[in-house]
Amino acid sequence: MPAPIDFYFDFSSPYGYLAAEVIDTIASKHGRAVIWHPILLGAAFKAMGAVPLPNVPLKGEYVLRDVARSARFLGLPFKRPTHFPIPTQNAARAFLWLNDRNTTKARELARALYRAYFVEDINISEADTVLDIAAGLGIARVELSDAISTGAIKERLKAEVDVALARGVFGSPFFIVEGEPFWGVDRLPQIEKWLSEGAF
Amino acid sequence: MPAPIDFYFDFSSPYGYLAAEVIDTIASKHGRAVIWHPILLGAAFKAMGAVPLPNVPLKGEYVLRDVARSARFLGLPFKRPTHFPIPTQNAARAFLWLNDRNTTKARELARALYRAYFVEDINISEADTVLDIAAGLGIARVELSDAISTGAIKERLKAEVDVALARGVFGSPFFIVEGEPFWGVDRLPQIEKWLSEGAF
Repeated sequence: MPAPIDFYFDFSSPYGYLAAEVIDTIASKHGRAVIWHPILLGAAFKAMGAVPLPNVPLKGEYVLRDVARSARFLGLPFKRPTHFPIPTQNAARAFLWLNDRNTTKARELARALYRAYFVEDINISEADTVLDIAAGLGIARVELSDAISTGAIKERLKAEVDVALARGVFGSPFFIVEGEPFWGVDRLPQIEKWLSEGAF
Repeated sequence: MPAPIDFYFDFSSPYGYLAAEVIDTIASKHGRAVIWHPILLGAAFKAMGAVPLPNVPLKGEYVLRDVARSARFLGLPFKRPTHFPIPTQNAARAFLWLNDRNTTKARELARALYRAYFVEDINISEADTVLDIAAGLGIARVELSDAISTGAIKERLKAEVDVALARGVFGSPFFIVEGEPFWGVDRLPQIEKWLSEGAF
């Protein structure tokens, strides 16, 4: 049984949104499972001395244009959010809690949160917004609300981010396939080659 | 007559090397000319508050691995240079001077310099090394040596870099196609779509 693909993403990352729309289809074409890992890029950015992309002169403007064009290239809808970037702790915690119980439902929630933010321009930073979107998918609101406010889930997310950093993850989307790191939705063609022909 | 593709590259950029090997073939498939622009990324990095990639924690290690894998993905040879990054003023000046006289020969020189650095691990920072490689292509050594030490060619390169920055160029390779900016050798599939189907 080949190893599953580790897929790291930040809910505030537009390229993460694009990857979330396609990674499961690509993996299943090659008989691979995917493990989804929500992370917070703040810690990695701190380690790199980096700032959020929109604040970088020259690159910031380019990236917003590139995201929109990359979405069209992949045939996916995209609308530049009014608020960007945003804190995504609540979204990540909700995903983590749900993913322990039902991975399919958790991915549905992830994609719904991503589309809310990057297609419908809904700011998903607040817990209430995350709970609304989850409720729309039939996820029990009170139970999820309680779950994402515990100290346990906060510690859990922190620990998950530490594991990601220890594995060398520094961006979103980030994939690890049999120990090989791939950064960016633009590396999907290389991942497909790897999955179909093996290490190259 | 469609506009030519502007191709910006730094001789110290491994992704620039990969792009230099393939851009003319891609462009000519679509009946497009390419204008080659050597630049120095130092000025752009300063504007962005960025440091050379190898010095960035986490990302630096990844990038060296990604370059090697991207070369294999494109079927191109690559050897990690012992000295990286290096100053590339001499290479850029030699290219500029030659390009005013013979664009075909200038591209031959550019590819020879890139291969020397990224395949044969030859440090191309010194003028003598650039002149040796140029001489190997039949380019008059004394004439080129004189040309790259004039104040005029130094000012010219500086001005070319300023133009690039003013156009929003901040990395290597960087392409501008009918006003649309594309950053990275990984954007070539998007450029191909643009060339064959028009703006998307």
